[in-house]
Amino acid sequence: MRVIMLQHTQDPEHVVAQAAKLCYSAVGVEAIAEKLTPEKTAGFIQKLADMGHVSAFEHAAFTFGIEGVSRALTHQLVRHRLASFSQQSQRYVSLKEFPYVCPPSLQAQPELKIKFDRAVQELGKTYTELLDAGIPAEDARYLLPNACETKIVVTMNARELRHFFLLRCCNRAQWEIHDLADRMLTLVKQVAPALFAQTGPGCAAGPCPEGKMSCGNLADVREKYQKL
Amino acid sequence: MRVIMLQHTQDPEHVVAQAAKLCYSAVGVEAIAEKLTPEKTAGFIQKLADMGHVSAFEHAAFTFGIEGVSRALTHQLVRHRLASFSQQSQRYVSLKEFPYVCPPSLQAQPELKIKFDRAVQELGKTYTELLDAGIPAEDARYLLPNACETKIVVTMNARELRHFFLLRCCNRAQWEIHDLADRMLTLVKQVAPALFAQTGPGCAAGPCPEGKMSCGNLADVREKYQKL
Amino acid sequence: MRVIMLQHTQDPEHVVAQAAKLCYSAVGVEAIAEKLTPEKTAGFIQKLADMGHVSAFEHAAFTFGIEGVSRALTHQLVRHRLASFSQQSQRYVSLKEFPYVCPPSLQAQPELKIKFDRAVQELGKTYTELLDAGIPAEDARYLLPNACETKIVVTMNARELRHFFLLRCCNRAQWEIHDLADRMLTLVKQVAPALFAQTGPGCAAGPCPEGKMSCGNLADVREKYQKL
Amino acid sequence: MRVIMLQHTQDPEHVVAQAAKLCYSAVGVEAIAEKLTPEKTAGFIQKLADMGHVSAFEHAAFTFGIEGVSRALTHQLVRHRLASFSQQSQRYVSLKEFPYVCPPSLQAQPELKIKFDRAVQELGKTYTELLDAGIPAEDARYLLPNACETKIVVTMNARELRHFFLLRCCNRAQWEIHDLADRMLTLVKQVAPALFAQTGPGCAAGPCPEGKMSCGNLADVREKYQKL
Repeated sequence: MRVIMLQHTQDPEHVVAQAAKLCYSAVGVEAIAEKLTPEKTAGFIQKLADMGHVSAFEHAAFTFGIEGVSRALTHQLVRHRLASFSQQSQRYVSLKEFPYVCPPSLQAQPELKIKFDRAVQELGKTYTELLDAGIPAEDARYLLPNACETKIVVTMNARELRHFFLLRCCNRAQWEIHDLADRMLTLVKQVAPALFAQTGPGCAAGPCPEGKMSCGNLADVREKYQKL
Repeated sequence: MRVIMLQHTQDPEHVVAQAAKLCYSAVGVEAIAEKLTPEKTAGFIQKLADMGHVSAFEHAAFTFGIEGVSRALTHQLVRHRLASFSQQSQRYVSLKEFPYVCPPSLQAQPELKIKFDRAVQELGKTYTELLDAGIPAEDARYLLPNACETKIVVTMNARELRHFFLLRCCNRAQWEIHDLADRMLTLVKQVAPALFAQTGPGCAAGPCPEGKMSCGNLADVREKYQKL
Repeated sequence: MRVIMLQHTQDPEHVVAQAAKLCYSAVGVEAIAEKLTPEKTAGFIQKLADMGHVSAFEHAAFTFGIEGVSRALTHQLVRHRLASFSQQSQRYVSLKEFPYVCPPSLQAQPELKIKFDRAVQELGKTYTELLDAGIPAEDARYLLPNACETKIVVTMNARELRHFFLLRCCNRAQWEIHDLADRMLTLVKQVAPALFAQTGPGCAAGPCPEGKMSCGNLADVREKYQKL
Repeated sequence: MRVIMLQHTQDPEHVVAQAAKLCYSAVGVEAIAEKLTPEKTAGFIQKLADMGHVSAFEHAAFTFGIEGVSRALTHQLVRHRLASFSQQSQRYVSLKEFPYVCPPSLQAQPELKIKFDRAVQELGKTYTELLDAGIPAEDARYLLPNACETKIVVTMNARELRHFFLLRCCNRAQWEIHDLADRMLTLVKQVAPALFAQTGPGCAAGPCPEGKMSCGNLADVREKYQKL
């Protein structure tokens, strides 16, 4: 898996603070901006997050390039509807030697991994035979497994990203999208630390949202996301 | 493929007309409703559609049960963001004898279909072996092909459905989702003919939205969707 | 204020339970439906709500006719983006004798209420004079006050309604939209009691989402929404 | 009215082209980026726009600070649901000397303008009296007219902006939001000319979407938006 941040709203924390202050202010956006030092911005954003007043967080958008993830992952990812996606098409791109993702549970058991690899490779051969026989890529791809790698560009705003992390950084999330979410969180924290302070799974900053703590060690989870 | 309408907004055309009339009326919703005979409702809805004033069409929602479609189809389907989805999970449901979809281009060539079937069945065997060896369903499913059948419940409102048909009833849409769109259109026309009169691909009621007519015979397309 | 339910998805709790069960089931929507007695449906919906698994609640939509509310209210109401609105237009409907909403804090002080009424009536006279002088309604309405009554048709699904109640049944919400939210909640509870059990402001089923309890008596709030 | 662009996605055209190319490409986002000269980017974006393939336009977001507009305008503006808003609150900000917007049709008739101004000023006096008598701002504002000025921060992506311009640059749109749309279009053209080439009302690049040309001179409209 490879995740990079392609672009984002310039000065994302500044614009969020500026917009949020406008709601309660008699003066205009420029007068507000003049007084917004980086320290005041960070402190104000923290206060908004604590009160759950995160609607102004929508003014900051982040665009990621994601590669080397499975189609199993992207089928889950595109269920997030407050986001924009551009994905490599299996209808238009035929991949004679397609890379694929192997789950860690199989990597841990060499004899099962061999079975898995062999099955995918056999299938790859048939896929190529179908293409060579003139079957269109959009039909031959019916053979391609969920493991098949894909590339996708994703844009989400900071409010939706926080919601995404809440769900997908959870230990009960599927391991691959959990890994993606951790990488995206690491990237956004570099450019907008205040917007994503104390962000992570629901339990990183409160009780388990599902009303269980069946996943394991709460202390470990919290420590992980404080350090991230 | 099997598509049924599970539920819909009661009296969908009546509520759309009632809401749309409110925008231009001094009287209230009940006085409006009294005058709305079925004929007036249909005529008024037609006028709204002709002018592109379709925002009131959102008040009518339709819920479909869809079965026997491929995961290739649902990966496309869930890209429609103004819709609600509940899909059978490959993480929680392990399918030892999974049914699958075979594209028509393969069905038309028996010797290729045999290759396709054999490849899917081989893969099914390995999938079962992985499950039996204790690999969790959510990881074993990395082997499952796009062809694998799934079930999904979908809700869309009439405005979004019209947009869905515009894109997916097009001859350039992928054949499986085109088939699904045709079936959904047939179903909604039975309960709300005025809301979906002259609905279909973009070219059914105007020029090709992509600025080509590369797909074939415009007259045939129009005749098909007038009869549907 | 007058709020009526115009239409809703037929059998809303049944379709929600049916869709939610599909996610974890090997059988199809019809086999699921056969086993769904009303008791099982209600119990299952309660379990989904407790775990926060409310995405299937989106399959049930409810349409309300709302009259006798102020434009101050509707400016807030239409900020809810996961909803559909059709509102009486001040551009196309000119209201020579426009009704208006008077806040309770003014009604409680007769001498202030007189001032308020007189100001609105003066303004109404000038509005009529402008219309009579040929000023278009869309410009004369610049004089109309926030208090001016309007009518609106609103559709939301059950998931978004629960979110709406969470925010707008709060004691810190503005009194008029709070009143509207209470009436809408009363109406949906009559047709879908399980979908809206324990619904209300955030504190009705947990701690105050804003981290304060500055509004007053928690016990009273909880009792009110249990009885509603 | 005062409209400034506060922030936007860095390099908006580059990221849109990069994302769109990914859909049809076997190589990754970085290899795509290397080949994207500004000329190629502009040409490719033009081709996407011509075919109506504008989903990748969503990756570019633009944030505007808008001041000196009426509450009549913002009530319309916030009906656009694929957008983010932060608006100065009349509940929390009390405006003893509130500025207001006077429509051009009134400015053109001095004797009517005097009536309008007097009515607003009378109303302003009563508003202040109510505040002084202890009525909360959130209730006193029921007196405030639609003309009352407000400030708002708005974020939309390029796809939604194009849709916004299509509706609101139309001669049949209300004059104030039409003026706002023209100013926003001028601003985005400065930072992303290719994304907004040939953008404007529906008739700027095709037939009138409402099936009329009742507004006036098509040639003038087209010339205006070509020059903008």
